[in-house]
Amino acid sequence: MTRADGRSDDELRPVKITRGFQKHPAGSVLIEFGDTKVLCAASVTEGVPRWRKGSGLGWLTAEYAMLPSATDTRSERESVRGRIGGRTHEISRLIGRSLRACIDLKALGENTIALDCDVLQADGGTRTAAITGAYVALADAVTWLGAHRRLSDPRPLSCAVAAVSVGVVDGRVRLDLPYAEDSRAEVDANVVATDAGTLIEVQGTAEGATFTRRTLDAMLDVSMAGIRQLVELQAAALAAPYPGELPGAAS
Amino acid sequence: MTRADGRSDDELRPVKITRGFQKHPAGSVLIEFGDTKVLCAASVTEGVPRWRKGSGLGWLTAEYAMLPSATDTRSERESVRGRIGGRTHEISRLIGRSLRACIDLKALGENTIALDCDVLQADGGTRTAAITGAYVALADAVTWLGAHRRLSDPRPLSCAVAAVSVGVVDGRVRLDLPYAEDSRAEVDANVVATDAGTLIEVQGTAEGATFTRRTLDAMLDVSMAGIRQLVELQAAALAAPYPGELPGAAS
Amino acid sequence: MTRADGRSDDELRPVKITRGFQKHPAGSVLIEFGDTKVLCAASVTEGVPRWRKGSGLGWLTAEYAMLPSATDTRSERESVRGRIGGRTHEISRLIGRSLRACIDLKALGENTIALDCDVLQADGGTRTAAITGAYVALADAVTWLGAHRRLSDPRPLSCAVAAVSVGVVDGRVRLDLPYAEDSRAEVDANVVATDAGTLIEVQGTAEGATFTRRTLDAMLDVSMAGIRQLVELQAAALAAPYPGELPGAAS
Amino acid sequence: MTRADGRSDDELRPVKITRGFQKHPAGSVLIEFGDTKVLCAASVTEGVPRWRKGSGLGWLTAEYAMLPSATDTRSERESVRGRIGGRTHEISRLIGRSLRACIDLKALGENTIALDCDVLQADGGTRTAAITGAYVALADAVTWLGAHRRLSDPRPLSCAVAAVSVGVVDGRVRLDLPYAEDSRAEVDANVVATDAGTLIEVQGTAEGATFTRRTLDAMLDVSMAGIRQLVELQAAALAAPYPGELPGAAS
Amino acid sequence: MTRADGRSDDELRPVKITRGFQKHPAGSVLIEFGDTKVLCAASVTEGVPRWRKGSGLGWLTAEYAMLPSATDTRSERESVRGRIGGRTHEISRLIGRSLRACIDLKALGENTIALDCDVLQADGGTRTAAITGAYVALADAVTWLGAHRRLSDPRPLSCAVAAVSVGVVDGRVRLDLPYAEDSRAEVDANVVATDAGTLIEVQGTAEGATFTRRTLDAMLDVSMAGIRQLVELQAAALAAPYPGELPGAAS
Amino acid sequence: MTRADGRSDDELRPVKITRGFQKHPAGSVLIEFGDTKVLCAASVTEGVPRWRKGSGLGWLTAEYAMLPSATDTRSERESVRGRIGGRTHEISRLIGRSLRACIDLKALGENTIALDCDVLQADGGTRTAAITGAYVALADAVTWLGAHRRLSDPRPLSCAVAAVSVGVVDGRVRLDLPYAEDSRAEVDANVVATDAGTLIEVQGTAEGATFTRRTLDAMLDVSMAGIRQLVELQAAALAAPYPGELPGAAS
Repeated sequence: MTRADGRSDDELRPVKITRGFQKHPAGSVLIEFGDTKVLCAASVTEGVPRWRKGSGLGWLTAEYAMLPSATDTRSERESVRGRIGGRTHEISRLIGRSLRACIDLKALGENTIALDCDVLQADGGTRTAAITGAYVALADAVTWLGAHRRLSDPRPLSCAVAAVSVGVVDGRVRLDLPYAEDSRAEVDANVVATDAGTLIEVQGTAEGATFTRRTLDAMLDVSMAGIRQLVELQAAALAAPYPGELPGAAS
Repeated sequence: MTRADGRSDDELRPVKITRGFQKHPAGSVLIEFGDTKVLCAASVTEGVPRWRKGSGLGWLTAEYAMLPSATDTRSERESVRGRIGGRTHEISRLIGRSLRACIDLKALGENTIALDCDVLQADGGTRTAAITGAYVALADAVTWLGAHRRLSDPRPLSCAVAAVSVGVVDGRVRLDLPYAEDSRAEVDANVVATDAGTLIEVQGTAEGATFTRRTLDAMLDVSMAGIRQLVELQAAALAAPYPGELPGAAS
Repeated sequence: MTRADGRSDDELRPVKITRGFQKHPAGSVLIEFGDTKVLCAASVTEGVPRWRKGSGLGWLTAEYAMLPSATDTRSERESVRGRIGGRTHEISRLIGRSLRACIDLKALGENTIALDCDVLQADGGTRTAAITGAYVALADAVTWLGAHRRLSDPRPLSCAVAAVSVGVVDGRVRLDLPYAEDSRAEVDANVVATDAGTLIEVQGTAEGATFTRRTLDAMLDVSMAGIRQLVELQAAALAAPYPGELPGAAS
Repeated sequence: MTRADGRSDDELRPVKITRGFQKHPAGSVLIEFGDTKVLCAASVTEGVPRWRKGSGLGWLTAEYAMLPSATDTRSERESVRGRIGGRTHEISRLIGRSLRACIDLKALGENTIALDCDVLQADGGTRTAAITGAYVALADAVTWLGAHRRLSDPRPLSCAVAAVSVGVVDGRVRLDLPYAEDSRAEVDANVVATDAGTLIEVQGTAEGATFTRRTLDAMLDVSMAGIRQLVELQAAALAAPYPGELPGAAS
Repeated sequence: MTRADGRSDDELRPVKITRGFQKHPAGSVLIEFGDTKVLCAASVTEGVPRWRKGSGLGWLTAEYAMLPSATDTRSERESVRGRIGGRTHEISRLIGRSLRACIDLKALGENTIALDCDVLQADGGTRTAAITGAYVALADAVTWLGAHRRLSDPRPLSCAVAAVSVGVVDGRVRLDLPYAEDSRAEVDANVVATDAGTLIEVQGTAEGATFTRRTLDAMLDVSMAGIRQLVELQAAALAAPYPGELPGAAS
Repeated sequence: MTRADGRSDDELRPVKITRGFQKHPAGSVLIEFGDTKVLCAASVTEGVPRWRKGSGLGWLTAEYAMLPSATDTRSERESVRGRIGGRTHEISRLIGRSLRACIDLKALGENTIALDCDVLQADGGTRTAAITGAYVALADAVTWLGAHRRLSDPRPLSCAVAAVSVGVVDGRVRLDLPYAEDSRAEVDANVVATDAGTLIEVQGTAEGATFTRRTLDAMLDVSMAGIRQLVELQAAALAAPYPGELPGAAS
């Protein structure tokens, strides 16, 4: 009943956070949850969408996508199909909502931060890795905005945000599912929470069977413990000096 | 601190279920949660999508949409815009997943049931009304399939499915939010569950603030009580004879 | 040689007009021509399209659509296909042209009225039912605009507009064809006219065979008589007080 | 009260029919109604659309389009906009219906004829010129099919088809309107008829004002006389030998 | 080893340039390279795209398209497919770049010239015929702009531009390939050059095999000689007076 | 007159080739030309497109794309815009053509290789880096196919393929332009060639000015020398053992 990769049920996969992966965006993070690799970029542009102009508030938006070569079997490019699929839409919206929960859009001033989360390699948990990495990229972009004196308030981030998946596999509650487990999970949940232990988003879904309140509670316990570890890893990564030179003013 | 419509915090809006609203589909239900009105149709077609052919399994799919005139301010038609929005995609997928949880696709045989949930009037909770009404339309379509001897197994439905929204408004946990409450809720959740009291889907989202495990628990308590009432109303509606003549064989 | 539903050749199906079907639009009418049911909503928005700004003239536009579940066999959703079909385009344009014939766009001021005609159930004659119902919704929207003092001239409607289908079936000229007759008609026409007996639009089409001037004349005689009855039914419906409360200022 | 181009009210513009304008299609006709020039090509392909396979019946389809440079002010290319407009859809459907009225699809065998009507220069009446020219291209394509022994029956065309516009301008019924008249017509009609004097399609539309039965009758009288002349011009054009070499077998 | 059409290897097909083919655009040229016929229109509109406003510079853009009936086998309409293919994009961009090389956009003032190159009949070399014809249409449009006093500088054209294809067929370098040669060429190149003998664009592509520098040199020699002839033909065509009346001010 | 990055005019930027960057595709290479980084993946799927079935021949296709965060200013996602731009189409086609020149599609058997070239960071020369990297990924994919006994012939690659950009900047011919040079180049060329020194594709474009044959010759000299170095670097990279474990059978 042990997991194929030797982990215990409540153990995260190895997490690796590489800041400054790209030179152009104000924040650029390659995050790895085991074999899942997501490139999270935070690009700053002056101004806000039309419907928000003159409000004094900033805006934060997110887009999630997968390289065709990221998956086991090559997946078709959404630009070629000419339309974005429901899953992509759903995850992009989740990332945006999750990160907006930690930022004071007034402090941001009339700037827009676009979070692009592009999956380079997929092995389960791409959306939770994306959220966890996007927070680090966002923190770097906020530092960059501060250094360029473009913030209305010096500390727009009120908390850290991380996310993890959890599921019931072979009747056991397990943390941070790789694709091999995820694809046969009976229940599947994604939890987004803060470093203060409060929740931002809970999404639990039965796959085939239904589940009890007790199971939901067990999944929440395990995932909150996982998120505590993830926020520590984020903090450690951000404590290091920015690698390489900072992006220029143009972002 | 009472609600604008005079309800107590854990009280549903008046629910009305009208079966047989349209003559063509095998099941057609107009469901009303207060001023929210959703037309839920279950259309049967012989055969399954290409990727499923020869499997002996049936398929169930769902599409959600809103009439332009359903909302307070007229909304643009997605067919005119030429693309389906993220919110529509997200809700269509939720309805499909929720209803697939209660049906044995093997018993269905190689038939496809399409659940169309078209919002005629929107006042909050359209997705939960849609799921609750779609279950009744699905039950009628299954009866119709049985009557036409097109089921592999006479009882493909393993449970009833209903859904309700719940949120934190003015610091209080409240059930079944109308638009006026929903638009200023601090936390917003949708819960889909069965008549056995087990969960199918839980989606809780912070809007601006974050929320605690304790708040999540309170929201789940209130929503499960609401769902118990909804499954009773479904059962009562289905206990009545089918209004008018049954749809013909062509469906 | 009698008709399947027992009507005489020049007899309309039972017509039912329900005003105030939806609470948000300024006018909302459910119209029924036998089993054909169309929901016609007239939504008012301040301002006009860009190309008309500053002209002092208002604008009226129309969109026709069908629910997937409205037809005998479920039809695919145009929003899902990503494009609007030729038939939909054609009918939307016809409705818009027909209703613009009765309204003084100068009297309307720089307001736009959008007429949404959504077919809930189709059994032939959906476009003529849509035009006939849209006139009633438009009349209610104009009353609403007057009550909110947003008209440049108090009486922008110069006439009433109604429409009916007529065809040659089994060699006989017949009024208001249901689907069963329409699908095997040799000639098919739609006539839009005013309460003054003048014409707005005549569209006659041979289906397979061609037709003579004499047949066209017979079809026009029958349809003009049908339209005389329809404008009386519209007037009777509009003579009643508005059901329920009036929509608020936001429309 | 004479017309700007000196014609009498019931006079056609000069008509010119050039067969064999392109070398690839089985029929290719450049038709001119005054300054309106439409290139009508009839391309034959073996086989029919999927929904018609095995029926033994052929198919005829039509597509209408305008070059961006055809109009007074350059119009945007529909391929660039990514969608076909309602007017284009409407006219394509009209051309297809009109020409299907004269062909026995059984005699055609399982072949498809695509009629492409591309407007090279527009000056009013493009749809009626297109129908009139398309008939000549179709006749040549049918001859070509016969010469290649691909017809089930040697004479699939049961009649000739021509079309003309007519309108009320300055209170007078006038035939074959150029753009300058069309754009200020009070009533506007297009009539499609056969060489036997029977009708295929009548479309009359009020522009601003409404019109009486008497006006409709006058418009029909004038247009039927115009169509008699057009079918003579078609017959004369087709009586000449095919210019240049016949297209090869590949069509 | 002679060519199917009897030409020598370095000989152009018969070239025919017809100015004033359409009455609306400021320049309209039908150009023929053998059986390839392209209609090149230069339409002038006041103003420039948004991103260029206030720059004092004009703009020149080009769009290439093919009629469905232009090719041996009917090709599908890109407007119907809903997207423009890669080949079309590529050629449109090539034409625009090529013609922008000869025009001083400052002298043009804030006007836009749209070059529409629509292939009426295709037999190889459509893009080179399009560029060669578009130059003549552009020259006429510039004359028209000058006559209407809309140029900042009276002579915005710094050179003439022409283009020709060249390829290796049966091991021999051949000029101006018709489709029958082009489709089996081992190497295929398009060369765009000026009347001064300088290059604007060189595109050489191996088809199946690769090629040597020596072959490239031979292809360039032959094509430059061909372009010298084409610029003479352009000059001769432009030396004649404009056929018919000039387009009006509206263009 | 030295270059900003200190290189001599005919010097390549530092090139880095990392094989096995992703675990799923049969070949996956991260190639760097200075700050330009392109991820090139070669995915194998059994079977060929429909139009090629039963031919016994394989197929090779390529798609190029750029991450929004790859450029100095964030670029919009083509999947979000709903259409692929002309530049993307053009480069995808160039990559496909270039690599098809070196592979024997008969030896490949009825397999398809999709080359996905995703630009992670752009600093000029993305298309030439993509071609150069794609060749290495293709070589690994071919090895993988051989190891899985899916080749009809053991050595389908007839040559190596590499590409480089060259331009005229400040009047000097310079190799391998970074964005800062490329954006102000007077002439810009891309050359694709083989390890045998033969050409596959030459594309030279004037930007503003025109250029002489002599300049073209100088550009070809410099680029062919650059390509000689690139094919050596490719060979060196491929001489090393495959890093990590080979992708599984599913590819």
